Parts: sequence; structure tokens; C-alpha cells
Amino acid sequence: MRDALVAAAFRLFLERGYEETTVDDIVALAGVGRRSFFRYFPSKEDVVFPDHERCLADMTEFLATGADDEPVRKVCDAARLVLLMYAENPAFSVQRYRLTRQVPGLRAYELSVVWRYERALAGYLRSRYAGLRDGILRADVIAAAVVAAHNNALRSWLRSDGKGDAEAAVDHALEHVRAAFADEAVPAVTGGPEDVVVIVARRGAPLWRVVQEAESALGRG
Amino acid sequence: MRDALVAAAFRLFLERGYEETTVDDIVALAGVGRRSFFRYFPSKEDVVFPDHERCLADMTEFLATGADDEPVRKVCDAARLVLLMYAENPAFSVQRYRLTRQVPGLRAYELSVVWRYERALAGYLRSRYAGLRDGILRADVIAAAVVAAHNNALRSWLRSDGKGDAEAAVDHALEHVRAAFADEAVPAVTGGPEDVVVIVARRGAPLWRVVQEAESALGRG
Repeated sequence: MRDALVAAAFRLFLERGYEETTVDDIVALAGVGRRSFFRYFPSKEDVVFPDHERCLADMTEFLATGADDEPVRKVCDAARLVLLMYAENPAFSVQRYRLTRQVPGLRAYELSVVWRYERALAGYLRSRYAGLRDGILRADVIAAAVVAAHNNALRSWLRSDGKGDAEAAVDHALEHVRAAFADEAVPAVTGGPEDVVVIVARRGAPLWRVVQEAESALGRG
Repeated sequence: MRDALVAAAFRLFLERGYEETTVDDIVALAGVGRRSFFRYFPSKEDVVFPDHERCLADMTEFLATGADDEPVRKVCDAARLVLLMYAENPAFSVQRYRLTRQVPGLRAYELSVVWRYERALAGYLRSRYAGLRDGILRADVIAAAVVAAHNNALRSWLRSDGKGDAEAAVDHALEHVRAAFADEAVPAVTGGPEDVVVIVARRGAPLWRVVQEAESALGRG
């Protein structure tokens, strides 16, 4: 019944426009009563984004498990859950994207949903960085960067009508963020193309520290 | 008259609550007509954020001048304009912060304002990074990171009732972002070419050889 309500709502939104469609129109087309609608959706706006609550719950659960993961990688993986939700049904996601562009109220709703995802990621990072100098700041900045990268790739994909490899685009975008923040977490060492290791050392650094970094970079610590 | 309307509105919001105050109440206390209110503010929400439009215009103008600036530094400086607006009147900013925490409609309004600042910064960076590989992605990520860092410091200051040095806190937060993204602009070396040594080693290389290279690179062979 929930799916039928979403399908009826979108058919009417596309035919008549979002503002011109009432909840009464939706329930009439779906052949159910108003109370059924409000059992599933608190408001007309919520029927446009039927899966975000589930996705937010999934993300929260995902972040609560596996405490030993590398923090930035973990939030990147968490962000991918949102992409998967969109990619489950590309045609629906593209329709919704177009609708959201047109209706200011829906854009505001979307901003508040994005904000909740960002706070979930930031909350996780804040707990992982607890006690670190600038831990809260770092958590907030990385969460915002992850969300921005994810949405950059997601929106490109939606604008291209769901064509192309959304997962590859999101992976690429998230890797961009991971690279920017990786050297904060690990020493200033980047693993070059497979077989080369680059070690960056300050000229004043003690030799033992450079050797230590070299050892760990070469995987022989 | 504009200031009088804002003052009357806030007095009523604090006394009675935001939802319980009507535009009629505000104009009655300010001693003006409804039309005067709507000449200055499109809605009751707008009177809560009377200076954002001006600040957005100032930011846009600031970003349009001085084309040769270092891009990340430029958007950090642009973000500081928002802080200055808040710091102009700390007591008012703290009151508004508390009000915004309590009223979901105002939080949504604030999210949309923050989004507009972020798009202004991202638009500037997109043009500066035009033609660069991943230029749009990088622009969006940096804009989001700058906004998150700025707001992290701003909100800490507001939560502390406007005590402490807001400018120093924002400077520190923005420097965090600048440091994370500085090495994208220059080659994969931080700290400038003068005082940093880069050692490239094959992953299979024996450690003693890497140490030898490090020694001679650091000038201590």
C-alpha cells in the first residue's frame, strides 16, 4: 500500500504539478483512505522522499558497528548507503530530482535531510576523534566534505538522467576527500602507483623518525 | 524603521515565543502599518535574519574582485564576512541562535541561507578551477569544508553566549581547512620546497638503501 501511494503521488505530481496535487487526490487515485496515507507519511512532502528515514536508520546502525575501522573510510562507506538507495530505482530518483529542483518547499526538505545525514557522519567522527586536538572541528569538516563529494557525484548522475556508473563516480569523489584528509590521520606518506613509496620529511626531522616512516610505508614496521 | 521592526519582533519572540507572535503584533508594538513590515521583510521568518541578504551581496561582490588571489584563501576571507556580521551585535546574535534552536521552521530557513553562502563560495571556486581535473568536485568539497569550519567556530562562540574571541576561533578553524587543501594546489609536498625532502623508494627496495638515501637527502650522510 505504501508503494501504491508513492506511485499514485508521483503520477499526479508529474501530470499536474506538486503544488496542485492534494493528499485527497493521491488517496483517491490509490484507492485508499486519508488515514492510510498519514499512517505512512506525516505530510505530502514525505511521500516525495519515502526512503530517507530507513536510509538514515541504516546509516546509524552501520556507523555503530565495527569500531576499529579507519574513521574517514568508515564515513565514506556510510555515505555510499545513500547512493545505493538512489541507485535502487534510477527512474524514480531522476523524476524526484527534477521535481525537487522545481519546488522550493521540497528543496528545503532535501536540505534538512542532507543535514541529518551530515550530522550522523559528524557525530560518528566526533566520537572517534574524542580527545584529539581539534577533534570536533575535524569531525565537522570531514563530514561536510564527504557529503559534498557524495552529492556532487550523485547530482551529476541524476542530471545525466541516471546514465553512467554512479557508483564509480561516487567512489572517485569520496577518494578525493579521503586523500585530502588522509595525511592528518597517518604520517605524511602516500602510497604511489603500486610499487613506489613516497616519503616526505621535513629537513630538520630526526633520522630515526624518517626511518620509522620508511619502515611503515614499506610495510615492514 | 527597519531596526525598530526587528527590535519589536525580537522583544515579542522572547516574551511570547516565535510561533505565538504574529506580524500584526509586531507592527502594533513598532507603531507602523503591516505594509511597512512587508516592505522590508517578505515574511515573519525574514525578520529573524535581517542581515543575510546584505551579507550575501557583500560576499558576492568580494568574490568578484581581486581575481589573482589564492582561491582557498579567498573563500576563507569571504566566509569571515559572515562572522563579522554576527560579531557586529553579539547580544542579538546569541538571542537569535537560541531562538533558531527552538523553532524548526527557523532552522530550515537557516539551512537554506547556509546553502546559499556555500553555493556562492562553490561558484567562485568552480570558476577558478575551471578546466582543472575534478575542478567542480574540488570546488564543492572545499566550499562545504570552509562553511563547516566557519560554522563550527561560530556556533561554539554563540553557545558560549558570545564570550571569547570569535575571530581567532574562526581563523583557527579556517586554517584547518586551508592546511588540508593546500597540498592539492602545489605538488604533493607540504611545508614549501625549502624545508622538505622527498624520498622516492621502490616498494621492494631494501630498507638500508632507503635509509642511505634519506641520510644523503637530509644532508647527514
